[in-house]
Amino acid sequence: MDQGALGVTARSAPGRLLAVLAAFDHTHPALSLTDISRRAGLTLTTAHRLVSALTEWGALERDPSGAYHVGLRLWEVAALAPRGLALRQVALPFLEDLYEATHENVQLAVRDGSEVVYTEWLSGRSAVGVHIRVGARWPLHVTGVGLALLAHGDIGLQEAYCSAPLASYTAHTITDAVRLRRVLAEVRRCGVAVSSRQVTEDALSVAAPVRGPGGAVTAAVSVVVPYADAQVPVLAPAVRLAARGISRALGWQPEGRPG
Amino acid sequence: MDQGALGVTARSAPGRLLAVLAAFDHTHPALSLTDISRRAGLTLTTAHRLVSALTEWGALERDPSGAYHVGLRLWEVAALAPRGLALRQVALPFLEDLYEATHENVQLAVRDGSEVVYTEWLSGRSAVGVHIRVGARWPLHVTGVGLALLAHGDIGLQEAYCSAPLASYTAHTITDAVRLRRVLAEVRRCGVAVSSRQVTEDALSVAAPVRGPGGAVTAAVSVVVPYADAQVPVLAPAVRLAARGISRALGWQPEGRPG
Repeated sequence: MDQGALGVTARSAPGRLLAVLAAFDHTHPALSLTDISRRAGLTLTTAHRLVSALTEWGALERDPSGAYHVGLRLWEVAALAPRGLALRQVALPFLEDLYEATHENVQLAVRDGSEVVYTEWLSGRSAVGVHIRVGARWPLHVTGVGLALLAHGDIGLQEAYCSAPLASYTAHTITDAVRLRRVLAEVRRCGVAVSSRQVTEDALSVAAPVRGPGGAVTAAVSVVVPYADAQVPVLAPAVRLAARGISRALGWQPEGRPG
Repeated sequence: MDQGALGVTARSAPGRLLAVLAAFDHTHPALSLTDISRRAGLTLTTAHRLVSALTEWGALERDPSGAYHVGLRLWEVAALAPRGLALRQVALPFLEDLYEATHENVQLAVRDGSEVVYTEWLSGRSAVGVHIRVGARWPLHVTGVGLALLAHGDIGLQEAYCSAPLASYTAHTITDAVRLRRVLAEVRRCGVAVSSRQVTEDALSVAAPVRGPGGAVTAAVSVVVPYADAQVPVLAPAVRLAARGISRALGWQPEGRPG
């Protein structure tokens, strides 16, 4: 995906600048000027000019070793993203309550195309099991939050998703479109999505949809627990409560329908 | 500050693109194309071309009403900022523990020039008092985190800061350089910074410095409580413990000195 995006955008002046930013990812959080020029497909001269402009503005920062990192000013601008930190500011008290009630890993995620992106994650130091990085991406059908977002996505998205090949991670991953459609119908019926051992053999997630003011599902909340101890009937009401609390805080008004 | 920054950067091609991003701030999280062109000092044609490139890449998103917001992809790149979300990922378990121990507002902040920038903030829905926004900025001398960062900053910074006029918010704000120097010495001596009623008449903060691997102070942690109930001797050890825990997680090794 990166290569494609870089290839397309690197042609225009804005594209070249964005290619410098896209050179950074979670496996490459610190880059030398040479790394940046290579990863962005730019000459060293062009890379130097763009990196200087970005550093002067504060979008990049240079550490004492000479390596470049993403800078505080870019982070401040990005904190305004409605689906990033802005959503998180509304959701955080409810996520904290869910964490205090369960003491398990708690996540908030949004959909980007056919993937979920985790935008928040809370866990105690003692919490065992899955470690999810903020910004991590997974296909929609393998996680609780993904199933909740897909089940409440529009019918065109669901049809396209079920028609494409379904990536598999364990023997329990849903790879059959008929089974996936049945799971999605069940998610809509009971208001909760359960994903069991689909990503790793030892984890299970329970998720519920978050609705915006108009009722559309804009995010999902989940708890990830070790499969061996998972008590879905205990977790499901807590997760639904947290999701409904966030939805109300976002301006959603329930209409007597399961949220 | 915005006007100056825009004025300087708007001359070059990268500068024009960055001026589009800088048009967004916490009082202007959603902008029309016309707003962007006016705030960035660009013609409508140039603004349209740059906004299109940024939207295609995912740095901006357009909502159904036609307004532009900061996009999820910019947020994902910005999540790599070592002093933003990356620091937060290390600090969060300790901040959660501090929150669970005190049930008060908990903050993490870093220094940017002569200001503190709040990069994390935890509070229960029932917590009263000060509301601090992630990304908020304050002069160093008026908050606990700011005093902790200034007291452990290099001597050049401290001299320059104490020589400049000190902004005042309440009758209790430190506006006298001699008094500020005495407070900074006290912060270094006891390992904790207390800021009492300097920002509002009803709030007090207790802060401690966070050290990086080499021992330099890179961030600060604080608790903000209502002034009337503040029990500094009770809060100080908890705040210091959280700050030392984060420092250790960042790679700091204590050397028998107060951290």
